[in-house]
Amino acid sequence: MAKNKKIEILDSTLRDGAQAERILFSLEDKLKIVKVLDDLGVDYIEGGNPFANKNDMEFFALASKLKLKNSRLCAFGSTRKPNEKTSESPIVKALLEVAASVISVVGKSSVLHVKEVLGTSLEENLSMIFDTVSILKENSKEVIFDAEHFFDGYRLDKDYAIKTLQAAVDAGADVICLCDTNGAFFPDEISEIIKEVKEIIPAKIGIHCHNDAGMAVSSSIYAVMGGACHIQGTLLGFGERCGNANLSTIIPNLQLKKGMTLIPKKNIAELTRCCKAIAEIANISLLQSMPYVGRSAFAHKAGMHIDGVNKITESFEHIEPTVVGNERRILTSGSAGRGTILKKIQKFDPTIKKDDPKTKEIVEKLKELENRGYQFEAAEQSFELVVSKLLGRYKKSFELLDFKIITSPGKNENNYTASAMIKIQVDGKTEITAAEGEGPFNAMDKALKKALSVFYPEISQVRMADYKVRVLNAKNASASYVRVLLESSDGKNTWTTVGVSTDVIEASWLALADSIEYKLSKK
Amino acid sequence: MAKNKKIEILDSTLRDGAQAERILFSLEDKLKIVKVLDDLGVDYIEGGNPFANKNDMEFFALASKLKLKNSRLCAFGSTRKPNEKTSESPIVKALLEVAASVISVVGKSSVLHVKEVLGTSLEENLSMIFDTVSILKENSKEVIFDAEHFFDGYRLDKDYAIKTLQAAVDAGADVICLCDTNGAFFPDEISEIIKEVKEIIPAKIGIHCHNDAGMAVSSSIYAVMGGACHIQGTLLGFGERCGNANLSTIIPNLQLKKGMTLIPKKNIAELTRCCKAIAEIANISLLQSMPYVGRSAFAHKAGMHIDGVNKITESFEHIEPTVVGNERRILTSGSAGRGTILKKIQKFDPTIKKDDPKTKEIVEKLKELENRGYQFEAAEQSFELVVSKLLGRYKKSFELLDFKIITSPGKNENNYTASAMIKIQVDGKTEITAAEGEGPFNAMDKALKKALSVFYPEISQVRMADYKVRVLNAKNASASYVRVLLESSDGKNTWTTVGVSTDVIEASWLALADSIEYKLSKK
Repeated sequence: MAKNKKIEILDSTLRDGAQAERILFSLEDKLKIVKVLDDLGVDYIEGGNPFANKNDMEFFALASKLKLKNSRLCAFGSTRKPNEKTSESPIVKALLEVAASVISVVGKSSVLHVKEVLGTSLEENLSMIFDTVSILKENSKEVIFDAEHFFDGYRLDKDYAIKTLQAAVDAGADVICLCDTNGAFFPDEISEIIKEVKEIIPAKIGIHCHNDAGMAVSSSIYAVMGGACHIQGTLLGFGERCGNANLSTIIPNLQLKKGMTLIPKKNIAELTRCCKAIAEIANISLLQSMPYVGRSAFAHKAGMHIDGVNKITESFEHIEPTVVGNERRILTSGSAGRGTILKKIQKFDPTIKKDDPKTKEIVEKLKELENRGYQFEAAEQSFELVVSKLLGRYKKSFELLDFKIITSPGKNENNYTASAMIKIQVDGKTEITAAEGEGPFNAMDKALKKALSVFYPEISQVRMADYKVRVLNAKNASASYVRVLLESSDGKNTWTTVGVSTDVIEASWLALADSIEYKLSKK
Repeated sequence: MAKNKKIEILDSTLRDGAQAERILFSLEDKLKIVKVLDDLGVDYIEGGNPFANKNDMEFFALASKLKLKNSRLCAFGSTRKPNEKTSESPIVKALLEVAASVISVVGKSSVLHVKEVLGTSLEENLSMIFDTVSILKENSKEVIFDAEHFFDGYRLDKDYAIKTLQAAVDAGADVICLCDTNGAFFPDEISEIIKEVKEIIPAKIGIHCHNDAGMAVSSSIYAVMGGACHIQGTLLGFGERCGNANLSTIIPNLQLKKGMTLIPKKNIAELTRCCKAIAEIANISLLQSMPYVGRSAFAHKAGMHIDGVNKITESFEHIEPTVVGNERRILTSGSAGRGTILKKIQKFDPTIKKDDPKTKEIVEKLKELENRGYQFEAAEQSFELVVSKLLGRYKKSFELLDFKIITSPGKNENNYTASAMIKIQVDGKTEITAAEGEGPFNAMDKALKKALSVFYPEISQVRMADYKVRVLNAKNASASYVRVLLESSDGKNTWTTVGVSTDVIEASWLALADSIEYKLSKK
């Protein structure tokens, strides 16, 4: 494999990734993910299928207005249907209309699928590919041809599978992407077939693997060894069934270990942050053991391993964790990460050193909070408040004296209501008020802001931008711990705070109180 | 790769697997896992390290009394320490004493580790290997030599790495297992190095891979291509950092796709059951997307895929799911198409046809609920209730007449409390009661079950297994829609229900009410 070779990356988290069980993105989620992927620096972001899904048409209209630094937006669609006039095909119309300069067109490469699933003739299928790619090229689109079930098709009828690629090349396709749609093939088979294809089709070859045999990462890498220079996958491996090829593993494997270029060199240190961000947006837990980016990827538990790592880190680590923005964790000694935390403390007070008692106190407090389920990676502002409190730099903006929330059924089935009474104190003055809302958190939020705005009128600008609840331990039935992550905005800035409790209301309250404190501390 | 070739399997779930973060086995857990692995038919069960862990000595004493059908127990330990008399080494004594006929001995193959981690001479390390293997062989043990960091060592100093293997062979080791301890190597590198080793060391070669580069499955398979005939891993991929090679993927890959023999042929259908059992014992959720055995491994969500699978199952499946004891699942979502939903309706009433007005009504209702944020792919039982209501086959088990939940701060900062009053009606009789809880949902759950158990005593068995909250649209600040997914269990069965509302309490109530209704409908 040639060093410095550029390998294109197409991320399909928003399209193939959304086919994963339990993954459902809102329009806002999708736009946030576009920004994360652009930050990381993938070449193409496949955003959806505008023909199959009307929301995707709207998504592209909005996404095309974002100023992307690295990535281009790509819309996905199939070829026209059998015996349809190309210019009148609703699929083609959607692909011409959508606000994306790059189109990935999926067509069938397997005789089995043409005959049994599509139910058309082999000739007509070739025309469908040629006609669809042609009309898109005539309209100045960049076209990636996704040859669905290519490897299965090549095994069944090699000549026909090649003809489907030739039809796309003849029509001007820019990339010919070979798909192991069922995830059935072994890496060496993928590599061999790509070598054979390149003998006949001297085009830019891409690879699209699924993980049904647990080898999508290896297969993508072996495809590159066979001559591919375009990889499709999803950053966290989301996808139908067992998922798509995991780009967060492929990127460092090829970039750090084989010296190729997949994303801008400086961005590799952003890999862990970007993966965590996407997991948060998707509201899933990032797999602890995920290579390079998982929380356990550089966690050492066995005594022999810890001893080795303490002597030379490379003794039990294949790369230095900070290279991908991750960190080493020593699980048994409990001394995990003092240096890391020190760096964060020094943002408040650069004079504090590693052996300062304050450092130890903050590390201990953080460990205690983390053991209780707090997670500060996604809630920097709650962490800042903890540090400023322990450094004695914190001035309370208000005191909660009492509250009561009452929830009861509303007038009809879909109109439950809650009311909240709240009593606070600011500079010795008390204020008691109440508010109604849709649900207890809404009522509490409104009542608190109503009471506070007497003292701090600017509080009325603060609104909730996102609110996420995760159960941390379901062993205790409905009394499990819950973690609330609250994203707030005042129109200019956005900040995130966290609360943990057995009670969803208390956890929400803690996150809300931190959010308000943070806003007021910035005055 | 030769067909019918026997490949030995060593499962290290109880030893290397126990090094995974959040994995902790009790003695009882370990004995249960031995039975599961023996049922599946692995050759060796590596049960622990009797020198490092006194409980492991006891484990082997108990496990050796189990009548195993297929597996042999293997104890793990390192070579004697530098400059120690072999017969007086506490490590060697433990390995001679332990109730296991097979011993895996780990020794260092990398000059870096000998010098920097062990801190001894290269010669002494060779003696440690030779002496330890020798004394075990003299005492009639079967010996597997685990060459730690072999591949790293081979890269640093090829000659010395080979000498460590030769020392073990000279002492009579039965298997020479080469370890990619840091999970750093690519499959083709593993394969090439094994070929080179076999030229010099004509022993039975084993492979032990870690998943730090996401390729442990492929690397193990390529090791076999290079000439290895013994694979070490863990059934679910548990292990330090990113885990060990996942045997539940390797076994079907080589046995079903390459015709080799890894476990007894008839046992391959037990694979999913055995994996679920180990996940259950380890108290973790089996990864949904795990190849072959995960719940999503044969789940189809995209309409195009469902259409294909309905025509020919192999169109989007690399193997028939029942072969490994798993099952096909067609996920219920609006994009699934009317045909898919019809099949689910026909489970209730086989006479209903695609053009029945009831079918249309149910599809419309499903789409309407999905537009409001319901998600039925993860909540089959709520969907069944919707269908049975629309088919007029639903009999309400209870009626909610009134409830009131009051949340207020507890006695101290970490002790918020909620109380719930609930009034229900069953067969014309009313019951009013109240309960306190940690948070409003806990209080409501307890109060409802208390009231219902007057009429339905079996309700007391129902407990919450998981509870997930997702905010669907944060545009409206704290009045966003929330979706609650509630997984319930009665000890035997598990079911999932869903509720959506602007109010987290109401959404929780809807999911809880469905859960109870479902349980009672199964009487």
